[in-house]
This record gives sequence, C-alpha cells and structure tokens, in this order.
Amino acid sequence: MITLTTDFGIKDPYVAEMKGVIYSINPDAKVVDVSHDVDKFNVRMGAFMLATAAPYFPDGTVHLAVVDPGVGTARRAVVVQTKRGFFVGPDNGVLMLAAQAQAIEHIYELENPKFRLPEVSSTFHGRDIFAPAAAYLDKGVAAKELGPEITDAVTPKFAVAERRNGVLLGEVLHVDDFGNVITNLTQKDLKEATSVKVAFHHISLELALAKAYGQVKPQEATALIGSHGFFEVALNQGSFAEKYRVNAGDRVEVALA
Amino acid sequence: MITLTTDFGIKDPYVAEMKGVIYSINPDAKVVDVSHDVDKFNVRMGAFMLATAAPYFPDGTVHLAVVDPGVGTARRAVVVQTKRGFFVGPDNGVLMLAAQAQAIEHIYELENPKFRLPEVSSTFHGRDIFAPAAAYLDKGVAAKELGPEITDAVTPKFAVAERRNGVLLGEVLHVDDFGNVITNLTQKDLKEATSVKVAFHHISLELALAKAYGQVKPQEATALIGSHGFFEVALNQGSFAEKYRVNAGDRVEVALA
Amino acid sequence: MITLTTDFGIKDPYVAEMKGVIYSINPDAKVVDVSHDVDKFNVRMGAFMLATAAPYFPDGTVHLAVVDPGVGTARRAVVVQTKRGFFVGPDNGVLMLAAQAQAIEHIYELENPKFRLPEVSSTFHGRDIFAPAAAYLDKGVAAKELGPEITDAVTPKFAVAERRNGVLLGEVLHVDDFGNVITNLTQKDLKEATSVKVAFHHISLELALAKAYGQVKPQEATALIGSHGFFEVALNQGSFAEKYRVNAGDRVEVALA
Repeated sequence: MITLTTDFGIKDPYVAEMKGVIYSINPDAKVVDVSHDVDKFNVRMGAFMLATAAPYFPDGTVHLAVVDPGVGTARRAVVVQTKRGFFVGPDNGVLMLAAQAQAIEHIYELENPKFRLPEVSSTFHGRDIFAPAAAYLDKGVAAKELGPEITDAVTPKFAVAERRNGVLLGEVLHVDDFGNVITNLTQKDLKEATSVKVAFHHISLELALAKAYGQVKPQEATALIGSHGFFEVALNQGSFAEKYRVNAGDRVEVALA
Repeated sequence: MITLTTDFGIKDPYVAEMKGVIYSINPDAKVVDVSHDVDKFNVRMGAFMLATAAPYFPDGTVHLAVVDPGVGTARRAVVVQTKRGFFVGPDNGVLMLAAQAQAIEHIYELENPKFRLPEVSSTFHGRDIFAPAAAYLDKGVAAKELGPEITDAVTPKFAVAERRNGVLLGEVLHVDDFGNVITNLTQKDLKEATSVKVAFHHISLELALAKAYGQVKPQEATALIGSHGFFEVALNQGSFAEKYRVNAGDRVEVALA
Repeated sequence: MITLTTDFGIKDPYVAEMKGVIYSINPDAKVVDVSHDVDKFNVRMGAFMLATAAPYFPDGTVHLAVVDPGVGTARRAVVVQTKRGFFVGPDNGVLMLAAQAQAIEHIYELENPKFRLPEVSSTFHGRDIFAPAAAYLDKGVAAKELGPEITDAVTPKFAVAERRNGVLLGEVLHVDDFGNVITNLTQKDLKEATSVKVAFHHISLELALAKAYGQVKPQEATALIGSHGFFEVALNQGSFAEKYRVNAGDRVEVALA
C-alpha cells in the first residue's frame, strides 16, 4: 500500500500523473490519498498531516510526501526506512515527524537511476523520482537498492512545548477544516488538569476540559484532547479559528487548574 | 466494496485515517468516495447524497456515512441491513433515506467492542467505530455480530410533497455544483404535465418541461425531471440558484399545466 | 485501468455514481481520478488535462472524459481506439488532444444499447452511456462492438503556434494551481534560445530560460520548459498568473535571444 501527501491540489493532473507512474511500474499497487491540499510549500503542515494519518496504516505501507519548495535545487531525495514501513520524499523534514514516531532504521538517498523515470524533469520530482521509488519499494525492492545510506538527513525543529512559571508555552500546529485549533501540547503536558486558561495573542478564555465537542452548547468554546492526542480548542458546531482569528503557527499559553 | 460519505472535507487527513483503519482490518477492501463535502453537520444533505449514489453500487456494498453533529453524546451508532447491502453510521437519520429505498431488514446498534478500535475517542467515531464496523462487514462478519437489534432508530422527517388547491408544495433538497435546484417533487407528482409554473419566495416562472438542459438557449431557465428522478429547475450552462438566489431548504410551489 | 476526467466537481455524488456503475459491471476495475475540477463546460481545459496525464498510464488504459455542454442534444458519444488504449466521451473534441498523441486507429459511435444502462437519462450520459462503455472496454469487450465506425469525429482547433517576423505567437493553454502559466509553445519552437522576451497583453518581461523554479529568488519571475514539455512562465514560490493577471486563452508573444 502507498499513501500520498502533497501540496499539488486535485484540480491539476499532477497527482494523476504520479498514480499513472506508480501503476505502470506496479499494476497491483493500492494507492490512498492522505491529502493534496497541504498549503503550498508548507512543510510543517505536510509533516503534521502525514504524522496524523500514518499510524492508522498497515505495516509495510510506503508513505510518499511531496511538499517541496526546493525541487530542482541541491536538496536531496530520500527514503526513510522505519520499523513499520517507508517514507519517501524530499530531504526537507516533511517525512520526519511521522518517521520518527515509527523508529527510524536507515535513510537512503534516492540516487540509483534504475529506480527513476528515464527522463527526470527539474520541476516535478514527485512524478519522476518519488513515485517510481515508492512503486518499487511497494513491489518489494529493498530500500538500500535505491541509493547510498546517509546519516545527516534534515530534521525539522517544530516547536517543543515549554513550561515557564507554571504556564505551558506552545504553538498552533494546525487549524482543521472545522476550524478546530490543534496545538503541540499533549495529554502528558496537561497532566490531571480539569480546566485550563488558554491565551492567544489578544484573547484569553477559561475552559473546562471536555470529552466531546457536544458537551457544550452550539457555538460555545471548549477545550479537549483531540482524537490525535493533541490539546485543541474548538467551538461546538462552529469555527473557533474564525471566531477568534487564530492561525497555524500562533503562540498559545495554557495555565492549568 | 465500501463507500464513504462525510462532512470531513478532503484537506484534513481524517478520511485517510478511516481508510487506513479499513485497510488494516481488511486489506482486500475496495473503498469509493461518494462525497466528503457534505455541508458541515447537514444531515439532510448527507442523506440526499447517499440516497442518490447508493442505487448505482453492487449488491452487498457497505455504505458508511458520517455526518455526526452529536458525536460523543448519547446518540447511538448503528448498522442498517437492507435487502441489498449495509449502511453504517450515526443513528441520526443520515442513513435512512438511502436504506429505506433498499428495504430495511434489521438495525443493530454498534456495541460489540470486538469490532471497534481498541481505544475509542470521543470525537472521531468515523475512525474508531464506523470504519472498523464497515471493514468487518465487508469482510463477511454478520451484522448481528456487531450489537443488539434495535427497533426505534431515528427516521428523518424530510418534507413530503403536499398538494393544496391543485398546487404542489415541496422544498429544495439540494443545489448541485452546477447551480441546478433539485426539489423533493417527482415524476409521479408531476403526472402528465408539459409545462409548470414554479414559484420560490420572491419569483415565479412559467417553464416548459424539457428533456435536456440543452433544449433552451444558454443562460435560459428550464424545468425537467433530473437524472435522479427528482423535479429540478436549471439554467442551460449557468447557475439557476445563483441567478434567482435559491437555497437548499427553500419552499417551492409548482402549478401544473 | 480506467481514468476519469470531468467537470462535475467532487462535492456532488455524480462521480461516485459513475464509479458505482463501473464496479457493478466490472468488479475488478481499477479507477483513477485525473481531475473533476475542469472548469465547467471548458472542453479545451479538459482536453489539456487529459493530454497531460494520459502518457503516464499503462498500455490498455481506458480514459473516460466528460466535459459535455451538449449533453442531451444531437452530439455523438464515441470511443477512440489508439495504439495504446481507449478514450471514451462526447464527440466534442475533449478526447482528441490526448488520443492524437497516441496515434488514433478507429473511432466508434457508442450506439449499441447492450453497453449502456437500461435507462438513459437526457442529462447524465457520464453515468448512463460513458461509464458502462468504459467498464465493458476495460473488461475486454472490443471497441467495435460498441457501435458503428465513424470518420468525421470533431477535432478541436486549439491554436497552433505561429511565427511572424521572428516572433512566436501562441496562447495560454492553462494556468495551474500554483499560478504557473503554461503556453502551447514547445521546446522545438524555442530551439536553442537561452533567454526570451515574453509579452502578454499589457506587460513584457525579459527572462533567462531556467531549469527549475528555484533558480530565481522567491517571488521572482522565470521561464522554462515545464515538466509536460510546454513553455511556461512562473514565479518562484508565487503566482505569476495572479501577479500579472494572465488567464487561460490569453495570447502570448515570445521573442528568442
């Protein structure tokens, strides 16, 4: 099985070209879209989405992610082999959040021309380098066949939650399609707290920690550990992000009570 | 075969997580998207979309629909077994329009923890309860294994067309992506009429009943029985809904001639 | 394998209905979406997208394209058999750019009622005529079984690049999701040029021919032969089309240097 995460959108035929390449090499492939609506060139958002989805896929899955502002420059193309599967994409960090969670074993640079398209464009490595690599891995080719091992892959420094004077300092990892605001704080950070004081730039709210959005009235704010294990704030049947103008990357402060 | 209908959108990785769960349980599953762009929490729209698509799928298909404003509250999770297949989702009516058209045989509550993920979140039953249920059903597990039979499932009361003083009173079920306005009136309601007088809140139009959009000039209005069997009004190569500001849920009056 | 290219969007269940029909006829079909976001009724854009994606699919693939402003009128439904595969859709030119590139062998009108749904609507031939035809072709039915051969299929007259006083005159085929402006000029037209003077209606730019977007600074304009073999202009990490207000169909003049 192969998953795809890109910032290509689904209007253009780019994703279909990648799938055509995959099926041409490996007619038995099963390809699943994670998302093609990662914000353009937003490596952190792509990394977050892949890390969210990957745990639910079977062992041996090949995860292909292309959010690649440096395509055509000197940045490397890699495959990360983990205890559970493979991650294929540019060496810019987009793979690492998901791969680290599966215990990285080896990283290889995609250099072997045997596992690329015969002609490699400068603008579309998703189709010419990454899709063939994923198709061959899914077909059973060993990762080490694809190129030399490397040990200096780029690792993203997405903010780690800090604690200062008893207040948690984190950031907004993602605003989902419902307008829910997902932070990089986890259950572990929140300990046994039953309510929190949450502050963004210009607003501050005291919220009880709920188990479900439906525990507050429609349009009311609530805080909870979301289904992905991260602390989030939301409106029941509404958009927290829109109401309070919160965006991915914003700082958040959380005091426990 | 499993179909998916949700209001999750395709930007976030939620749908991919559901697919990952399905393939982890049932690697041979074939999964087809009906729509993930149901308006958020709009149970009627989800019900309409599922009812439109389901007739075209093979016998034995498992239809999974998650439009679920009550997730995490006391609303039940169910599987509806019909003469032709299975419908899995929340017990809020979203399944029933499609299921009734296939002759409902049994309804079971999804209570058996054996056919759920080991940990069930309060916010994402699509992944934790519904996707596993669909995967097991598709794999051949009997519906009655999933939980106790119930007889009081929620049935939606979507408006039924009435006739008053010779005028049909209905409502707009859906405005499609072309701006075509689909009502809950059917061929049966319209009988042998060859033209109609159609009235929405502030406008009234006399229209001949056409067989195809192309029978009138571009940008002209026409009325017809659409490909799904419902009476609709449309502009040829334009948006009726935008031009006349008509929305889903609007009342419509139709006089026959 | 079957690919789908339409202007139906993915919000409505139309595409799912087509897939349901395909799987009902041919449970082993593998269906891949090229794009469902072709601008409504824009036959040229559909033709461009299909022509871009088709080369990457395996021999024997059945490509189904429905951009069909004339549905329900006298326009014919056809299958184009090429050296490499099949193209199914309306006879309005949408198939021909892709089919010509594969060497057309025969064109048949889809007239045989045996390979349609029992009831054919006037508004949705994608589901009632084209999807069944594609499913049967994919299953191994010979194209000539589907209807009589025709020799007068509609061929689109998409602008061909001209040269006048040493200046290339072309047009914008497509603006992609990144805002890159793709023209109908090719490497062959540009010969050995290393820089170009590109003029649209109101602006004129002198640009070096690059190999990759990343060779210029962010937000700077560049010109290159894109991954599909067409001459394009782009901003590195920005939208050329938005900045310079260029649209599909616009004329472009290119002087070589």
